Amino acid sequence: MARPSSDGEFGIIERNFAPLAANTAGAFDLKDDAGMISPPEGHELVVTTDAIIAGVHYLEGADPRDIGYKALAVNVSDLCAKGANPSVYLLSVALPEKVDSHWLDGLSTGLREAQSDLSCMLLGGDTVHTPGPAMISITAVGFVPTGRMVPRSGAQFGDRVYVTGTIGDAALGLLLVQGADMPNLSPDHLAHLRKRYWRPQPPVTVIEVVRKYASAAMDVSDGLVGDFIKLCHASAAGGTLTGDAVPLSGAVAALLAGEPEYFIKAITGGDDYEILMTVPAEAAKPFETDCHARGVGITCIGHITPRTDGVKVTGSDGRALPLDHPGYEHF
Amino acid sequence: MARPSSDGEFGIIERNFAPLAANTAGAFDLKDDAGMISPPEGHELVVTTDAIIAGVHYLEGADPRDIGYKALAVNVSDLCAKGANPSVYLLSVALPEKVDSHWLDGLSTGLREAQSDLSCMLLGGDTVHTPGPAMISITAVGFVPTGRMVPRSGAQFGDRVYVTGTIGDAALGLLLVQGADMPNLSPDHLAHLRKRYWRPQPPVTVIEVVRKYASAAMDVSDGLVGDFIKLCHASAAGGTLTGDAVPLSGAVAALLAGEPEYFIKAITGGDDYEILMTVPAEAAKPFETDCHARGVGITCIGHITPRTDGVKVTGSDGRALPLDHPGYEHF
Repeated sequence: MARPSSDGEFGIIERNFAPLAANTAGAFDLKDDAGMISPPEGHELVVTTDAIIAGVHYLEGADPRDIGYKALAVNVSDLCAKGANPSVYLLSVALPEKVDSHWLDGLSTGLREAQSDLSCMLLGGDTVHTPGPAMISITAVGFVPTGRMVPRSGAQFGDRVYVTGTIGDAALGLLLVQGADMPNLSPDHLAHLRKRYWRPQPPVTVIEVVRKYASAAMDVSDGLVGDFIKLCHASAAGGTLTGDAVPLSGAVAALLAGEPEYFIKAITGGDDYEILMTVPAEAAKPFETDCHARGVGITCIGHITPRTDGVKVTGSDGRALPLDHPGYEHF
Repeated sequence: MARPSSDGEFGIIERNFAPLAANTAGAFDLKDDAGMISPPEGHELVVTTDAIIAGVHYLEGADPRDIGYKALAVNVSDLCAKGANPSVYLLSVALPEKVDSHWLDGLSTGLREAQSDLSCMLLGGDTVHTPGPAMISITAVGFVPTGRMVPRSGAQFGDRVYVTGTIGDAALGLLLVQGADMPNLSPDHLAHLRKRYWRPQPPVTVIEVVRKYASAAMDVSDGLVGDFIKLCHASAAGGTLTGDAVPLSGAVAALLAGEPEYFIKAITGGDDYEILMTVPAEAAKPFETDCHARGVGITCIGHITPRTDGVKVTGSDGRALPLDHPGYEHF
């Protein structure tokens, strides 16, 4: 870690962060000016950075374990979408003076849990104090065989559109955390929604199939509909997303059975950290077979059309769904 | 750039940051989820991250061009110290709502100037809003031939200690900016000190000789004395730094002629962003010759001793200098 300016920061690095890098090749126990990465031969690096700020990207008072977990997970989600295997990350933490060792221990515990789940290890970082809210900025690095990174811009007319996992859990979980009343849900369903909000789980098992079959991919972080529109625009294509086909968890299905108006929130709300991808029609069958063999849950939710057809979200009757949520309307 | 959450952030990326990445291979015009790096064969990557925060690492009201320049320069400084050639950087920016387009234009202009001077191009990033002060976190990536990164921990008994450039200009420049009176300095000298504070210039011309000759190196950011102590500790060595040998600019020499008490500030104050390195005694002569041929200014300021001798800073009479500055005392 570079340039800590007080004993306090040395102590934090020693106690909370150096243990996270203890087994990382090239991290030098966080005692050098920089970390080192030895890329495997024939590979390129995929690099992404995302910052989360207290009160903006997570609620003040959130469990610091969840904050640490989420900070790494949202970055690894981008690597998954590019077909890159996560490797290492750099951590830049700005801490308010009021942060105590309990909070820091929680943060580093959450990072450790995410490292273990997501196979991405601490390589280096920087710890500074701030008069503002806590900020955790992570730069994550993954590897792909040379030339195999999956772009956002590769979708072609005729491709099928797939998404991993289920959609809407996190957005509805956030409503719950913010105090929404969902009386028709069981305690298990309520717990599921909250957990999906607090602990995004990027589907690392999908990385190889993304690389093998996808023509374009991105992670779903700003809401499925908005992100689908972005993918189509980046690919200079049109697309149709079949709302009825969007995969829903048991909890969301139970909620919608009583309160169908939540559907729009589910498909526009964001924080899913699932992978949206397009697959050429002729590869759809082997792709699905391969996913099932690997236990990767994917669902076909639409197809890519000519650019001039625009982007549409339809119900089962083929008619456009009435969408006027600000999450996507200005795209 | 990932996940901008409003039109405002799209506009900022488009106007201020995408032009900085226009010629960067693998940046995809900042329109994908991640950037891509194709490492040259036979090379490793050196990666460092440093954040700067308004009111902490730069004065509120500073010229945004200088802020942008410094944010990249302090990272490239770490790469220089490792003998790594700068390549690309990721930029994570947290902006207060009050930031206007004039400030942003200044920031991106300063980044562009630093990119050009330091040969390090924008690859990707993240732009978010914050209720706190502005924060600019950069992760910079450089290349070294495999196995050639220069560690902080490689100094050996008998090595000579060298530093690039001149020391103390920035620390005294900060005092000036904060209102100190230095009546015996000419306008040119005053301007020089201020400039060294606002615009750190990591010595990129030294990279190849660092890699070729240095046994250990680090950048001088926390003050020469404190950083020398860190280098000795990391190398499990002792060391003697000859205070009289420390290279001073004309401005600092002129200041010290009238007010010698500023000397301690000069060698402990920090923000130099010069390179401190150790070179085996037998390589000292070819190292110096090579530096002179390349026009790299270096000065021998001490030598490495056995660990049991501890770390000393002496005057010309060989006696320890009276140092009690908090910049290093707790190491």
